[in-house]
This record gives sequence, structure tokens and C-alpha cells, in this order.
Amino acid sequence: MTAPNNHLTLGPGAEFDAVRATIARWGAIARGTGDDGAVLDVPAGLKIVVSTDTSVENVHFRRAWLTPEEIAYRAGAAAISDLAAMGATPLAMTVALTLPDNWREQSMALADGIAIIARDTSTPIVGGDLTTGSELSIGVTVLGTVLHPLVRSGAKTGDTLWVTGRLGGPLLALKSFERGQDPTPIHRQRFARPVPRLREAQWLAGRGATAAIDISDGVVSDAGHLAAASHTQISIDLDRLPLIDGASPEVAARSGEEYELLVTGPSTIDALEFEREFGIPLTVIGTVGKVGASGPGVVTRVAGASVPAPKGHDHFSVP
Amino acid sequence: MTAPNNHLTLGPGAEFDAVRATIARWGAIARGTGDDGAVLDVPAGLKIVVSTDTSVENVHFRRAWLTPEEIAYRAGAAAISDLAAMGATPLAMTVALTLPDNWREQSMALADGIAIIARDTSTPIVGGDLTTGSELSIGVTVLGTVLHPLVRSGAKTGDTLWVTGRLGGPLLALKSFERGQDPTPIHRQRFARPVPRLREAQWLAGRGATAAIDISDGVVSDAGHLAAASHTQISIDLDRLPLIDGASPEVAARSGEEYELLVTGPSTIDALEFEREFGIPLTVIGTVGKVGASGPGVVTRVAGASVPAPKGHDHFSVP
Repeated sequence: MTAPNNHLTLGPGAEFDAVRATIARWGAIARGTGDDGAVLDVPAGLKIVVSTDTSVENVHFRRAWLTPEEIAYRAGAAAISDLAAMGATPLAMTVALTLPDNWREQSMALADGIAIIARDTSTPIVGGDLTTGSELSIGVTVLGTVLHPLVRSGAKTGDTLWVTGRLGGPLLALKSFERGQDPTPIHRQRFARPVPRLREAQWLAGRGATAAIDISDGVVSDAGHLAAASHTQISIDLDRLPLIDGASPEVAARSGEEYELLVTGPSTIDALEFEREFGIPLTVIGTVGKVGASGPGVVTRVAGASVPAPKGHDHFSVP
Repeated sequence: MTAPNNHLTLGPGAEFDAVRATIARWGAIARGTGDDGAVLDVPAGLKIVVSTDTSVENVHFRRAWLTPEEIAYRAGAAAISDLAAMGATPLAMTVALTLPDNWREQSMALADGIAIIARDTSTPIVGGDLTTGSELSIGVTVLGTVLHPLVRSGAKTGDTLWVTGRLGGPLLALKSFERGQDPTPIHRQRFARPVPRLREAQWLAGRGATAAIDISDGVVSDAGHLAAASHTQISIDLDRLPLIDGASPEVAARSGEEYELLVTGPSTIDALEFEREFGIPLTVIGTVGKVGASGPGVVTRVAGASVPAPKGHDHFSVP
């Protein structure tokens, strides 16, 4: 089902009433015809990028930690961030919401969170699905357009490894939540309101970036994906990781759901110009080298000497 | 995350191992680059159609009723059917799977069910998301291409109302399951293995069909959506509904998740030619008329006289 743009396009029924209320709440950012599918024009010559992301209660978030708006915002931001990592421009999103009875009263707040990230990134909500269930789940699929996608396999021997922003906030927020404490406002903001780096990625792509990935599992884990896809060995200098206030290099290395960009490209990219343009740092944290005898992978270093890699983030390994 | 096409493109981790195993199982129908998003080419001049559908355990199905393959097949078929209703050709699908621990052993069977509907409809699986959770949920987003979409709002006064196939099977299967009995093979097949009417919709669009919707809520409810979108009054002759063996007109009127097509168009469409081409009937079941004083809606008739509408299917109203 898609998001209709007025109240007449669906027949009667409680489910449709809930859909109508959500769409009314979304206002102009919800676009659709009330048809079985939404119809989108694609400018000639551009490719479509598609990605899907699901946020499940007690797996990706706990209810006590965030407001409903923040929970929904994060779910949308995680998906949009995949478009950023590809250097794509958002075209549309669909939202599949599984809403348990004990979340019904928060349905408008959840809708608001989706609307905030949709508006912040100019991404029309063109469709969705609303169902009951025993746990809150927010599935977001995003479509973008791109001329030349930034792909993980593009990293080349000799490239410099860059990262946007400052790392560690989400993990420090998580640790505070798990101790039953309030995170600092900065850590909380980094966890609750991550910002997809859409314009940053396009800026970097325009300056010769060869590959990019968004940091969802932790910078070391995600560098592993880049290394695997590009068949390279990536070296990360842990002592060069840009740190959020209060973070150690080890925390910065492991912190997931950052949605900052890990980018490979020429050493000539102007980090000061980047910082002036976007108000966040762009930092050299390592290099891309030839694949070693043990195959593609990541080497972590401190003061130039190899150290064991801090363990990353893996939903299936976490109880 | 997207479905990579080999084992090298993701780094280590239990979640990625599970993703890799699924993708290996899918074989050639899974296509992707291992990037944050899948990149798709769109033929110039065509529009994109997108739709999303979620199937949740104990809301859309019960585990005891169907095999894991069938459960996953149905989830995919429901989404693909939305493309059929738009007259679109499948381009790609993404699969968001929430897999509780007590379903882990069935993960390959679930993957197989997705692969069957993907292969049956030539829909590459280009991305997905795998997460834990407390209940099985299968979210499928489909993308299609179309030159002239069939939209719900296209129904016009004077149009004939057509339906494909024979109705009632899914509801009769459901009733048997709920009584703890085995449905007849025909009813079970209609419930467990619905067939998206992709080629049928394109055939009908080519012969002047003005609007279409797939029957997911029940023919009367879905006719209500057509009437609302096209601002018309749709009359359905319940005694003309094409019945599956064992179904009454009332059952056929209420049966949801049929994924047959409800189509408006000229009376001149050749139903015999349709049946020869596709092996299922195409039946006139009513007409499209001017909207009445009470607004757009559906009138149900028996022997030409108005009768109360049989109640449809609404997940939010069903306990």
C-alpha cells in the first residue's frame, strides 16, 4: 500500500483510519496517489540506489532510552545514511511500521520522527505498510539517484583513509543508558539524532573519493567491509581517530551507528575546506595498502605499531 | 545493507555469516555489489513503481498452517502483486527479515520461499536486512518499471468491472486452519501459493483497462478503494462472483489475500481470449457508475437488488 495524499483514496476500516491519520500528520512530505505502488520519475541517465534497514525494539533500541520521535528518526536516518555512503541523492522512502498495542498512543510521535528525517533530507515518504505485532519494528526502504555511485570496491592501494566527524558518541551514550544513567547531551545527541552525511559524500565524490561506507558497525568493522570489497589491506591509526569529548580511541574504534563516513581517496582532499563547508572535521586515519598473505583485512596501529583490533558491533553476537 | 554476490565483500561477524549463507542459498537470483545500497539501471522513459509489504507472525500467518517456504513465498507474492496491480514489470526486491531464535533453523527454508517467488517473477533480490527479534517478520519492498501505470483513480462511469481467477479459496483455507482442519488442496494452494497476476495486468492494460487493484482485503473492500480513488460508485453483483469450488458468494466477497486483480475497463475486453492466454477466467462482476449522494462507495447486489455488503478483511479489526 502507498501513502495517499488525501483522505478519500482509501476505503473504510480501522487500519485505513490509522494510515490516514499518519499521512495527515506527515503533511506535504508524504506523497502518493493511494495506489498499490507509488510512481516515481527518474531523471534520464541517473541510476537508482535502493537500501533497506529495520529497527527492532530491544535489538536496535530500548524504549526507555529515547523518545518515540528519536526512535523513528534514527530508523530513517540509518537508511538514508546508506544513500549518503553511495554518494546518492534521496528520491523517496517507504516506511513499514509494526505497531504493538502498547505503542498505539505513540503512533503520532513515531510518525513525527520519520517526518523530521524525511524533511531534513528532502526525502518524500511515498509508501508504507502498517501492521500490528508484538514488538515495535520500523522498516525503512530508501531510494536515491546517482550518476556515479561511490562503491566499497573502489578503494585503491595508495589511497588515504578519511573519516568525517568525531567518533565515540553513540557507544558512550549506550554505555550510559546501560548503566541507567543519562548520557551527556553531546553523546545523547550523537546517538539519538545521527545526521546522514549526504552533502558531505557528494562533496567528497566530487574531489576524487574512491570508496565510501557509512559507519554502522564501528569504524574498524566497516573498514573490514571496505577492505574485503576492494581486496585491499586497510591500516587504521587508532591514535588518529577523531574523538568526541570523553571518548578513548578504543571506544571510537568500536562505536557503531555513528553514520559518519569512512572514505578512501587521494591525500590531496582539502580537510580545512571540508570543515569550513560542513562544520565537522575530516580526518586522515590511515591508508589503503596491498592485500597481505592472509587476505583482505584491517590492521590497527598505535604509534605506528600493530595492535589487536578492538572488537566491533554485531547484532547477532550481542545478547 | 545489500546482498553481495560473493563471500568476500563483507567483513567477519556472525550476522554477516548468516547473510552470506542466505545469499549463497539464493544463488543467481540475488544480485548486488555488497555496497550500502544496490545500484539499478532504469530504462529511459520508464517510471519506477515502489511498494512495501510486511508479513508478521500471528498477524498475517500462523506458523502451524504453512511451511516456512510458503510463509516467505506469500510475503514476497503479496508485494509483487502490488506491481501487477500497477501494470508494472518487476525490477528488484529487497527483503528485511526479522528472525527470532526459534526460527533460526528455518532460515534457509524461508530464504527458499523468497527465492521461489523471486525466480517465478524474474525479480532479482538486490538488498536486505537481517535482524533478531521476538517474532518472525518478513518485509518485502519491490521496485518495478512501467510506461503507463494502471492507477486506482482511472475508473470511469460506464466502465465494466472485471475480476481475474476464482475467489474464496484463501478465506476457506483460513476457516479450515482456524478449525484445526486441513483445507482442501485447492483452497490450500490458493492461500499458500498465490500468483501475482503480472502478465495478466499488462495484457489488460494493453486492452484499455482504466484502473486496477489487487484483491488483498476482499473484493468488496478493494472495490471501495477503487471507488474512493476514482470518485465513483461501484456496483458488484455478488451472484456473478467467480467462485472457487466450495465457496459461497458471501465467502468470495469477503475473502482477502487473493491477489487476483479487480479491473475496470471497456465491456469489449475479450474474456475468452484472456482465459485461453492465462488459463484462468476473467469475469464481469459489476459496473462503475456516477458517485451517489452519499459519496464514493460500493453497492452490492443480488439478482439486481441491493443487499448489505459482506464485511471485509481488516487486520486492525481482527483479534
